[in-house]
Order: sequence, then structure tokens, then C-alpha cells
Amino acid sequence: MTSGPGTGADPADQRRQVEHEPDIEASAIAAVARTRAQGMHFYGQILGITPRPPDGGPAGPQLVPDPAIVPGAVPPVAVAAVADLAMGSAVRAVVGAGRRLGTVTMALHHLAPVVAAPVVPAARVVWIDEERRHALARVDCTDASGVVVAAGQGWFMALPVPESVQLRLLPWEHHDLPPVRPVAAGALEPHEQAAVRATVRAAERARARGTSVGEELTALTWEDGAPAGTARGSLRIGPELTNRVGHVQGGALYGIGLAAAARAVGSTGSDDDSPLVPADGSWQFLTPGDGDVLVAEATVRRAGRRAAFASVTLTVDGREVGIGQFAFRPDTAG
Amino acid sequence: MTSGPGTGADPADQRRQVEHEPDIEASAIAAVARTRAQGMHFYGQILGITPRPPDGGPAGPQLVPDPAIVPGAVPPVAVAAVADLAMGSAVRAVVGAGRRLGTVTMALHHLAPVVAAPVVPAARVVWIDEERRHALARVDCTDASGVVVAAGQGWFMALPVPESVQLRLLPWEHHDLPPVRPVAAGALEPHEQAAVRATVRAAERARARGTSVGEELTALTWEDGAPAGTARGSLRIGPELTNRVGHVQGGALYGIGLAAAARAVGSTGSDDDSPLVPADGSWQFLTPGDGDVLVAEATVRRAGRRAAFASVTLTVDGREVGIGQFAFRPDTAG
Repeated sequence: MTSGPGTGADPADQRRQVEHEPDIEASAIAAVARTRAQGMHFYGQILGITPRPPDGGPAGPQLVPDPAIVPGAVPPVAVAAVADLAMGSAVRAVVGAGRRLGTVTMALHHLAPVVAAPVVPAARVVWIDEERRHALARVDCTDASGVVVAAGQGWFMALPVPESVQLRLLPWEHHDLPPVRPVAAGALEPHEQAAVRATVRAAERARARGTSVGEELTALTWEDGAPAGTARGSLRIGPELTNRVGHVQGGALYGIGLAAAARAVGSTGSDDDSPLVPADGSWQFLTPGDGDVLVAEATVRRAGRRAAFASVTLTVDGREVGIGQFAFRPDTAG
Repeated sequence: MTSGPGTGADPADQRRQVEHEPDIEASAIAAVARTRAQGMHFYGQILGITPRPPDGGPAGPQLVPDPAIVPGAVPPVAVAAVADLAMGSAVRAVVGAGRRLGTVTMALHHLAPVVAAPVVPAARVVWIDEERRHALARVDCTDASGVVVAAGQGWFMALPVPESVQLRLLPWEHHDLPPVRPVAAGALEPHEQAAVRATVRAAERARARGTSVGEELTALTWEDGAPAGTARGSLRIGPELTNRVGHVQGGALYGIGLAAAARAVGSTGSDDDSPLVPADGSWQFLTPGDGDVLVAEATVRRAGRRAAFASVTLTVDGREVGIGQFAFRPDTAG
């Protein structure tokens, strides 16, 4: 649905979108304009990841979502995205902004069932090897209530930059943030148009399901008939999800895994139990998430009264790209 | 081999042990004496987990191994044990020493391929819920070289204390550490005798394999003929490995998982690659590790030049008690 170059816009389709979701399309085009001017990637820009205001602290990202995209509570996938970017940026501040980093593993604890925007991560490098190829970073994310709502750690590795790719600075790595020039709807490149249309479709799903665009961008289409304690879903990868080198963003992969784990755990629950909320997850980024169709499979490993556990495998076009473990706890704050 | 009550000592067997490993038996009996006087458990005492000297910091454990048990580099399983205990103790300092805590998940990064004793963890509580039932803690472990060699985070949960179990304070929770009274070899309780004999047998394996008693206490017996990229091993659970409520200590479970993962990864390597060392692991403690026979099964998920990944399942008597993910990296410091 969001394949790249060559996807021509169908004028009738565009008109329908404009009638139903004019502000979503404008938000998506504004994200395209920010991506063009300031870098990062559409996914980060549409989620509302922006440079932290200069306040004496180190430069880095924060999550200030467009209310059209995330009108209420910030979903875990967006927290994971900004946490991953913040840790990676802390490492890049040490190894040099020109280096390409891969997140190898990430563990993230979700400390509040409801997260209110904005989300401000504070990340730091705990360790880096002598050759500056491997680093461990930690992050604490504070939300609007002023408390830490997520805390994580991740292992990052310096990677070669693929040929033909010119790595651009991240928005908070500019000394002076380039101005954003408006982009006309008719002036979108094919991959930009695909990202905008995917966002508009995500908004349609969000309205139908009572969720947010931010969640629906990474929403899986679930297979019916999965046995209790399992979940299986798929997602077509489009330019709305990929990073600067064409791979699905790491926080998005983590969030997709968490969603699959939550669905598997939810399929085992009885109605009289208190609802479970994500407690933590750990993810191994086995290989880049690039390709056409992503499939997530989750299996409950234990569903107890005090905690539930699920493991997840993500494949892209049949190739295993990531595995994760997620834990859930009763919503004691609820 | 280390079953508890009713295991009578065979005098001939004892004589053989004394002839070959007099100091190991003495070290093990000294660990029994410390366990009786100061609490914790034989496993922690034999590894050399002791109270940190009072220096103004919060009370907690450190790892100062008996050279008879860990003569050289400190194995990851011992680092995991003291890291787990340090984080749990930091939480107990907040929720009260009388509470029983379970480690629910633990993620640990191994930052140095060689760790020199002593290992001093610094742990702190990052978050605790209002009902004081769930907590997140972090730990940094510094070794003799003065650098952080392991860094982790863990989710801990307050648990009910099983009936008939009287929870004792941990050694560093005493205001005044009780004096250790010598224990005569002939005065051991059956479970203590079993722990001592298991330690002596571990020493025999350590000498034969060039490893340490600290590693051999949790060493698996590997099944032959496992396909490349997999490993399967088993271990009979004895009182040398169990904590105050009769479950295998959490750090030991993590370390057993790591050993299985390392064996699976090692089975895929070619000789001209630089050796891989543990980079990190994350573990889900699904349910207590109590029972007779523990089986670990590890599968490589990806073996690349820059990193290798394996997942592990631990069962006890056929029941899944834990799952983990481990990552390995080239030994760039080597």
C-alpha cells in the first residue's frame, strides 16, 4: 500500500482523503517539509520528535507530538522511538555525528501505564570501547507529569555507511537548525507521497478503532484464528517507517514487537483480572529491517496473576530480523 | 549427585576427596559456617559474596572470591549473582528487609572480557510503584581495575513468603555482623554436606577442564550430537545452588543461560574469526527454579561477523522456568 517510487497519486483518491482528513494530510506534509529541511526521517518527524530546546544540557531529541497524530496518551512505540534515538545520539556525540550507529540490543522498562506528552529523554553513555565501535547507553524519559515514565539501556555499534547513502545530520546535531520551507501537496516525491498517504490511512484506522495515528502507523493486521496465547500479524513496510538508510526505525520494531506480545497476552486473560500493562521489554536487532512485508509472531511464555511474559519473533520477507521478550504487570495505578 | 536429606556420606568417598582437594573442602565448610552465622545462602557464600565494608555508602554486597574457588578471572555467572543481589538489596533497603523479592527480569551488559576480583556493585532504585510492589533498579559493577565491567537493570517484585519459611536477613542487612563459628566436617547437616560434596566435585571438574569452581558449580553436562548452532545441557539442582526459599539463585539461572548461549554460538564459529565474548543478556524469570533437573536449550538466532545472538529456554523437570536472549561481540580488547 505504500510502495515507493512509481506510485502515482490517484486524484480521486487524494480528493477523498482531503475531504475526510484535511488536518492529518497537512500534518503529514508538514512532517515531509521538516524531514527535507532538518533531516532524521519521516517516521520521527510525524511522531513529533524534535530537538530539545537549548538549556545548557547536551543536544538531543524530545517527543512533542502533533495532537492530530497523538491526541492523548503517548503510545509505547513512540516512547521507544525517542528513547532509542536519544541513546544513539548520546553515543554519536562521543563518536562523531558522521558515524552511522546501529542499535544492537535495547531493554526498556515502562514505568507508567499512561504517558503524557511531551516526553523528554535524558541519555548518557555508560561505556565505550577503546576502538569506539561499541557503546552502552542509558536513558530516562520524563513525561509531562515530571516523573520518569520509561528507563532503558542499549548497546550500540558503529556500522559502515552503505554506498550511495549520504548520511545527514540529525535535527539536534545542527548548530543552526535549518528553516523549514513549506511543501505543496503537488510537489511531493513519490516516497513522500506514499508516506503521506500511509499516514492518512492510519488516521482512518485510528478513528475507527479509537486509537491514535502514532499507534496505527505501526499497527499490524492480525491473522484470525491464532490459538489462545499466541498472536500473528503482518505489516507492509513503507517509507513512513524507514530511517535514513531505508530500514525500519529501531523503536518502531520494538513497538511492533510489544504490540504483538500484548495481543498474545491479552488472548489469555479472563475478564475479572485487572488489566495488564507493559512492564518491560528487551529487543535484539538481529539484522536490518528492510524489505516488503514484516510479520510478527508472539507466544505467551507464562501468564500468571502477578506477571505475564511473551516472546516475539519478527521476520521481513521470511528473514528473521529481530527477537524480543516482553513482560506485563497488573495496572496497580489504575 | 547432590540430593538433600538422607544422603549419607560414604567414608571412602570422603577420604578420596580430602586427599585430593583438602583446601576446597575447607573452603566449602567455611562457606557453610558463614551461611549459618550470617545468612544469605551457600551459593552466595561459596562465590565470595560478602558485605561491603562500611564507607558511608549504602549497605550492600560485593564479590571477593576465595582464590580456591575463583583463582583467576571472575566468571560472568558470579558477576550476575552479585549484580542481582545488589539490585535486590537496593530495593529491599526501600521496601524493608523483611520483604521477599523476586527478580522478574534482568538485563546485564558485560563490558570487559576479563573481570578481576574484587567486584563491587553500586545499585540504586530508579523507580518504585506507589504500592511498593514493583521496582526498577540499576547496577554498575566495578572490578579491581577500577572501571565499570558490568551494567544492568532489573525489575523486582514483592512476593509472599512461603509458609514454613523464616526469611533471614542478608549479611549486609545486619547492624552488627554475627561472628562466624567454625563448623566441624562431621557436624554438617545433610543439605550442607551435599553442598560441600558438590563443591568438591566441581573442583575436580575445574582442575580437569582448566576452569574455576565458581564456574563448575553451575556447569551443565552437554548432550552430544546437538546440531551446529544449538546446545542442550542439563544440571541436577542441589543445595549448593538454591537461595533462602529453595529456588536456584537468579544470577545462577542467568549464568547458566549465558553458558548455554555461548556454547551454541561457539558451535557455529570458524577458526579464523576473532573469538566472541559475551556482550549482554536479558532474562525473564518466569517462575521459581525449584525441582530436580534443570535443562538448558540454546539456539543461535544470528551469527554475524560483528555480533552473534542466541536465545535460551530453561526448564526444570519439564516446566519452563526462564527464557533469555544473549548477544556476543568480537573480543576487540584481546
